[in-house]
Amino acid sequence: MNEYQIYVGGKFRKTNTPLPVTNPYNKEVFAQTWLAGPQEVEDAVLAGLAAEEEMASLPVYQRYEILHGVSEALKSGRERLATVLAQESGKPMRYALGELDRGAQTFQVAAEESKRLPGEYVSIDWTPAGKGKEGWVKYFPVGLMAGIAPFNFPLNLALHKIAPAIAAGNPIILKPARSTPLSVLELAKILDKTSLPKGAVSILPTDREAGNQLVTDPRIKMLSFTGSPAVGWKMKQQAGKKKVLLELGGNAGVIVSDTADIDLAVKRCVIGGYAYSGQICIHVQRIYVHERIFDDFATRFTENVKNLRFGDPLDPETEISVMIDEENAQRVQEWVDESVEEGARILLGGEKKETYFEPTVLTKTAESMKVCALEVFGPVVTLEKFHDFDEAVGFINDSRYGLQAGVFTNRMDEVNKAFNHLKVGGVIVNDVPTFRVDHMPYGGVKDSGLGREGLKYSIREMMEPRLLVKNIL
Amino acid sequence: MNEYQIYVGGKFRKTNTPLPVTNPYNKEVFAQTWLAGPQEVEDAVLAGLAAEEEMASLPVYQRYEILHGVSEALKSGRERLATVLAQESGKPMRYALGELDRGAQTFQVAAEESKRLPGEYVSIDWTPAGKGKEGWVKYFPVGLMAGIAPFNFPLNLALHKIAPAIAAGNPIILKPARSTPLSVLELAKILDKTSLPKGAVSILPTDREAGNQLVTDPRIKMLSFTGSPAVGWKMKQQAGKKKVLLELGGNAGVIVSDTADIDLAVKRCVIGGYAYSGQICIHVQRIYVHERIFDDFATRFTENVKNLRFGDPLDPETEISVMIDEENAQRVQEWVDESVEEGARILLGGEKKETYFEPTVLTKTAESMKVCALEVFGPVVTLEKFHDFDEAVGFINDSRYGLQAGVFTNRMDEVNKAFNHLKVGGVIVNDVPTFRVDHMPYGGVKDSGLGREGLKYSIREMMEPRLLVKNIL
Amino acid sequence: MNEYQIYVGGKFRKTNTPLPVTNPYNKEVFAQTWLAGPQEVEDAVLAGLAAEEEMASLPVYQRYEILHGVSEALKSGRERLATVLAQESGKPMRYALGELDRGAQTFQVAAEESKRLPGEYVSIDWTPAGKGKEGWVKYFPVGLMAGIAPFNFPLNLALHKIAPAIAAGNPIILKPARSTPLSVLELAKILDKTSLPKGAVSILPTDREAGNQLVTDPRIKMLSFTGSPAVGWKMKQQAGKKKVLLELGGNAGVIVSDTADIDLAVKRCVIGGYAYSGQICIHVQRIYVHERIFDDFATRFTENVKNLRFGDPLDPETEISVMIDEENAQRVQEWVDESVEEGARILLGGEKKETYFEPTVLTKTAESMKVCALEVFGPVVTLEKFHDFDEAVGFINDSRYGLQAGVFTNRMDEVNKAFNHLKVGGVIVNDVPTFRVDHMPYGGVKDSGLGREGLKYSIREMMEPRLLVKNIL
Amino acid sequence: MNEYQIYVGGKFRKTNTPLPVTNPYNKEVFAQTWLAGPQEVEDAVLAGLAAEEEMASLPVYQRYEILHGVSEALKSGRERLATVLAQESGKPMRYALGELDRGAQTFQVAAEESKRLPGEYVSIDWTPAGKGKEGWVKYFPVGLMAGIAPFNFPLNLALHKIAPAIAAGNPIILKPARSTPLSVLELAKILDKTSLPKGAVSILPTDREAGNQLVTDPRIKMLSFTGSPAVGWKMKQQAGKKKVLLELGGNAGVIVSDTADIDLAVKRCVIGGYAYSGQICIHVQRIYVHERIFDDFATRFTENVKNLRFGDPLDPETEISVMIDEENAQRVQEWVDESVEEGARILLGGEKKETYFEPTVLTKTAESMKVCALEVFGPVVTLEKFHDFDEAVGFINDSRYGLQAGVFTNRMDEVNKAFNHLKVGGVIVNDVPTFRVDHMPYGGVKDSGLGREGLKYSIREMMEPRLLVKNIL
Repeated sequence: MNEYQIYVGGKFRKTNTPLPVTNPYNKEVFAQTWLAGPQEVEDAVLAGLAAEEEMASLPVYQRYEILHGVSEALKSGRERLATVLAQESGKPMRYALGELDRGAQTFQVAAEESKRLPGEYVSIDWTPAGKGKEGWVKYFPVGLMAGIAPFNFPLNLALHKIAPAIAAGNPIILKPARSTPLSVLELAKILDKTSLPKGAVSILPTDREAGNQLVTDPRIKMLSFTGSPAVGWKMKQQAGKKKVLLELGGNAGVIVSDTADIDLAVKRCVIGGYAYSGQICIHVQRIYVHERIFDDFATRFTENVKNLRFGDPLDPETEISVMIDEENAQRVQEWVDESVEEGARILLGGEKKETYFEPTVLTKTAESMKVCALEVFGPVVTLEKFHDFDEAVGFINDSRYGLQAGVFTNRMDEVNKAFNHLKVGGVIVNDVPTFRVDHMPYGGVKDSGLGREGLKYSIREMMEPRLLVKNIL
Repeated sequence: MNEYQIYVGGKFRKTNTPLPVTNPYNKEVFAQTWLAGPQEVEDAVLAGLAAEEEMASLPVYQRYEILHGVSEALKSGRERLATVLAQESGKPMRYALGELDRGAQTFQVAAEESKRLPGEYVSIDWTPAGKGKEGWVKYFPVGLMAGIAPFNFPLNLALHKIAPAIAAGNPIILKPARSTPLSVLELAKILDKTSLPKGAVSILPTDREAGNQLVTDPRIKMLSFTGSPAVGWKMKQQAGKKKVLLELGGNAGVIVSDTADIDLAVKRCVIGGYAYSGQICIHVQRIYVHERIFDDFATRFTENVKNLRFGDPLDPETEISVMIDEENAQRVQEWVDESVEEGARILLGGEKKETYFEPTVLTKTAESMKVCALEVFGPVVTLEKFHDFDEAVGFINDSRYGLQAGVFTNRMDEVNKAFNHLKVGGVIVNDVPTFRVDHMPYGGVKDSGLGREGLKYSIREMMEPRLLVKNIL
Repeated sequence: MNEYQIYVGGKFRKTNTPLPVTNPYNKEVFAQTWLAGPQEVEDAVLAGLAAEEEMASLPVYQRYEILHGVSEALKSGRERLATVLAQESGKPMRYALGELDRGAQTFQVAAEESKRLPGEYVSIDWTPAGKGKEGWVKYFPVGLMAGIAPFNFPLNLALHKIAPAIAAGNPIILKPARSTPLSVLELAKILDKTSLPKGAVSILPTDREAGNQLVTDPRIKMLSFTGSPAVGWKMKQQAGKKKVLLELGGNAGVIVSDTADIDLAVKRCVIGGYAYSGQICIHVQRIYVHERIFDDFATRFTENVKNLRFGDPLDPETEISVMIDEENAQRVQEWVDESVEEGARILLGGEKKETYFEPTVLTKTAESMKVCALEVFGPVVTLEKFHDFDEAVGFINDSRYGLQAGVFTNRMDEVNKAFNHLKVGGVIVNDVPTFRVDHMPYGGVKDSGLGREGLKYSIREMMEPRLLVKNIL
Repeated sequence: MNEYQIYVGGKFRKTNTPLPVTNPYNKEVFAQTWLAGPQEVEDAVLAGLAAEEEMASLPVYQRYEILHGVSEALKSGRERLATVLAQESGKPMRYALGELDRGAQTFQVAAEESKRLPGEYVSIDWTPAGKGKEGWVKYFPVGLMAGIAPFNFPLNLALHKIAPAIAAGNPIILKPARSTPLSVLELAKILDKTSLPKGAVSILPTDREAGNQLVTDPRIKMLSFTGSPAVGWKMKQQAGKKKVLLELGGNAGVIVSDTADIDLAVKRCVIGGYAYSGQICIHVQRIYVHERIFDDFATRFTENVKNLRFGDPLDPETEISVMIDEENAQRVQEWVDESVEEGARILLGGEKKETYFEPTVLTKTAESMKVCALEVFGPVVTLEKFHDFDEAVGFINDSRYGLQAGVFTNRMDEVNKAFNHLKVGGVIVNDVPTFRVDHMPYGGVKDSGLGREGLKYSIREMMEPRLLVKNIL
């Protein structure tokens, strides 16, 4: 069985608490790592603090080489690393490979952005008080950071903490999800071979107490968290004086107008709804279809969902596999059952089989049902009709969340309305809200989060401006 | 009779050559100014060169006060100045008043942009050769400029030279059109009362020889010209080492798609086609209407044009009046006649009456006719049908010019095509190409010009970047 | 006695709890207003929420007119408003007049920035996943805000909440300090006469419970607070999901190098140290002088401080007057006494006389003493020598705060070191840290705050980016 | 003997006019290529025009792959290509290798910048005329370009035309110098193996007539020229409606203040003055040293220059070798002799030996001598003293050129003066004007050029903005 030591302050270590890692598809424990406790976190903090100055003053060409080198290593290890990722997460290989490609891109973009850290000129003499003076603003790294990553993109969402931290010049301690620590510990091995200052990156799954320390420790200047809304907002409260970046979930909606390309809409909604069993922050959860084309859309959509190939994540043909664990599958079952009791109709699926939950299509739902109002994080999509576009915009906005939304239409007035009135972080026209490329600004409003990722944007959040005012005479 | 002295190096002067100014509507000489010759240009150049350093080092708050003060003076003299402008140009008061409003805005925006001159940070250490260094870029004024302005917006197009020159810190010598020198000489009186360094602005109509000196004199660092393509491109050739900005004409086109709001399209096209008798660089010259709605559009458009009120420019009710001079009216008559000989059909108008040319609608034209291919600069519009949108885009592009284009549509794919494939400086959706607000980037491609106006943009053209590389260790 | 009604949701009102306002110089109650309780806050919240949509969609030219109009009104009421401000705060007229000038500038800059709200283009096709797509980012207002302002710049620091909120399109509820509510209630009268949507701005001093509601109410999307570190950081904890901007205090330091212009340094440090009795976030609290010039500097500095003219704030000759209340004067007395007990030496002053505290110069202090380590917010300055520049940088950085720092030097290596190594929000070369013009980015690191003001910067903090991804083919 | 076919519209071809290539060190003809005539230019133009649309619509990821792939190929062929370059140009291997490294960097930066083509948001409703509208600006490629490159950096200065052209989406025809066509024809082989559309790049040395066609042909939209001022400015005149970018020469100066690090100044000035025998646009031609340190500097500088190792360019130890041809060496001899006749004193060197010209140091020169006033483009440096800094700034500015300047100092007031008053494109503090990294903005003012290179900047020059105005309601 493979053993993965955790990476503390530039050293690979074991602890007293083994952490077995299970393949959710076949329930086998196929690898082992260790849980960090308070001591390992303390060591990581001290190493990180010690690395602050060296990180802040790394020449740009060295930052580039390190980040670019990691990108190349992720490319050359693509198949092997995707297999580890598929095993720990139950994510089908086709998506695991895609995650590796995105991870390589995340590091490459960070490499490029490290050359382009912001800086600006400010003329100061707008009033006589500023006569003879001018200003220049540079951005400096905030210092030691903590990053907390979820299970659903165990590699790439961790990289969205680590890569911009390095680009900005910040040390970082990264805590992966307990269920999926391996792919990012593979990254630790890659990082360890670069010229990155030791201590600049620590990667350690933790027990609850040690994890909490990452949130509360005042020596840590910033916390970047991706995960569930409930946990994220509580962390904000406990984070003290830290800057906090939260990438939380949502109940992303899609509007399909009567001018839409229905083929395209169906095809993209199937992927957006069921890829990795809907365990994606921007999974298509709610689809609103213009009444004129609703029946047509519903028929074709359900047909397509029915044809998704279930199987072992490691099988390249597999399109849908198990959920991360039975507990989650059980939760989804309860929400679906509850919705049916309250009047919803199942068009397809609706049943759990151990950790597998069938791709499910519901209709006749109400906004108050959990499958609509909360983040279902499972392979469940609701399909409802709307009468006019403003109404559909209202449906999407009638939510505590606001991450991304998709709009299929060819009417410019509808695009304008969608962009100007949907209260979300991103509006995707003629594609699903699930669309994300790694350099684009990404993040939610309302309960869906605080701040933006997408390398240029997260790097900016990880830096502080400093103004220099000086004489020019 | 009013006398307007010319403004040379901060002093109001007469010369040996009087220049009478005629009202084109009633043919009366109502005012007199003087033509500058080589000596006055030489004096203006020397005064401008002497003012370079002081202009370059004016504190921002003083630039703001000067520019903002002029804006306020234009507002408070609105009615009076618009009357002068209407008299010298034959422009109906409603449009002359609009030009005053725009002129005040041009100066106010320049005032604000003078606070926001560009500057940027450049990290230098992308390779080991740059280790320990960083760069800052500031922009410095180019130095003495010449501006040459046309008759059709005798005030505001001159202001688009003068206001950004002051904002950038450049002295400027402005030559107005011989037929319309008065409104900008009114501006000279306003400028003279501010704290602007004497010599920073000269305003002088010139004879041909002296005008040519503005183009060829090597002590002048930049030439900004608005006028006809033939003259402009020749100036570029003669300008030596100068930077050259050219705002030339075009034969602007409009596409009316079958998803357009026809009422809106008709209403806007009438204004775009006939305001100031079409003597506008971005006047609507060619309208392409989808075949499905062509007849409807043609009927309503012609009806509306027929109702335009002709009269004295000073009458506030007047919607259309005379052209700038009979020579131009005669040229338009010849072009229209020629087009009819070659197969065009007149839907409305077509006749010259002294300096007045009737609002004219043509159809069945060919791209090779002068009324299509050249800049008509008169109240003539061609109306043709198209079959599909790509074809209409081709029609617009089949021209030596490329200033602005209008597109009336509610289809997003058409908007995308228009923006990505129309070879022009600006694409105006659901409005005419005649749309311009003074802060927007404005200028043409192909034979329509070189560079962009719209204060922020013209200021940038009037400045040179300078890089500072220094150690940061 | 003047009565000032509070401004709740667009209406002037009284409440059940009168709030008398005292002149701290002569202890007279010279005006009265009212304290808002939970009901008034609730009304203000409801009115603010109701105004969100209208505020978000105000055309730019209307935002400009409103903001610019207020700026003009502040200019025309300059003397009268400064008198109110001097009376409520005990701030000498010369400084009160300066605050009015700055307030007018704050609104004018906000007016101009409202035209320049950010927006950006993002190419999306960096990987095949983004083929055929492009992105545009616009920024939208966050929605209803709360602003909490301190007593020391009772007008301008409130305006730094209100003006950018309006520019961004956000309604705002502003709570002034209880001791100084009047000048900002004067602003309410000005705002009420503009075309600003009713309910967009509420201004109300509150009791503790109602004030707390502004921090905790989840319908309020953002909190902008200027005040003491202790209060500010606690608010961050209680603010729930809100965005939080904190402008807190510091113990600003100055370095005087041996290449400094001593005359300039002395003159500026006297103003930075004692203006408004040091009750300024960026008051000069600690001066570090190169040992070679220490004695000379100390002599001249003390001499200059000794000559400051004490008197009635309303007397235009007055340079220093009373503190805001006796409680604060008493606290300063205790800190000074404590420092002396621990070994500090008084070079000048050191005594409280009712609410007046003498301008005080201390030396032989230690970083651990309260007069060094905490924010003294009184007319007390410490003077210490240093041996080399790196040491001086270390002294400044040895603090929990990091707002601004001043450096007097003519050596480029020292400027570079200062800018790259001082952990503050702003480094002012050849001037005191007290330097602020209203459009510059302003704010602290470490315990001194979170986020930046300076209109462009605070507006950006008050908006959320939204990405539009669309097809371009 | 190696044969290099020219690269015309995506095909390697011979012509009727062979062009032998000589090694200037040993006078041997070591390779042969061919001169293009009008027919080959015509073919290249047609192929370029045909490629315009495909180039404009290449997805970003393909542009990146092509450009990045070339960068990698230059790295892997480094030694071999540097040898070709050293042979054709007589450039010592240490500098030839450096040029290869820079070439790889030029393509890599272009790859990265192709992802970051500009685009901006413009709010339109600053006046009621713009109500309900907003604007977006995108930049589009200008179309077919011509690039003309000089002999002195035969590879990298050609790449500064080709790489940004590809990044911007423009086809380009590149004409290398006749004496040094080989290294860039090696690039043609690399480009030909990529997926770049055929015809997008042509590389062809030409006879005079065909070369002239590149300047005058109206189908070519832009000309980018690096070479001598006389030729460049004449081209501007003949270029018709083209955009023109000129990178010309200068007589770069250095100021050595009495606060300078003399060791550093000497060491850097030796390299800046004599690398590649001074045949560099930003070669150190004039050194002004503060009178207090002049003798010391002169002694040490002359000593260091004396020790430069002469030899075969292919010898890795060689520091200085021959000039490009005897004609140029002869010209330098005449200028030096003339200066001596007019009163200059030779401190070192001064003699030509065939194509070799000794490293030469002159003093007691006058600004009017050719060795000062013109671009010497040979291993000749003048050394003069100055009394105060303003005088030194005046010396540098007393020139028809303005490319870059170097300043060695540790006084901030001198840095400020240098940056704000030296009329050049770049001021390099504590290094020589010869400093250039490939991504920095680079170009001259006055007779030294027009426009800026440095990928981001040249790409911008190679594109045209286009504004989209649309409704947002």
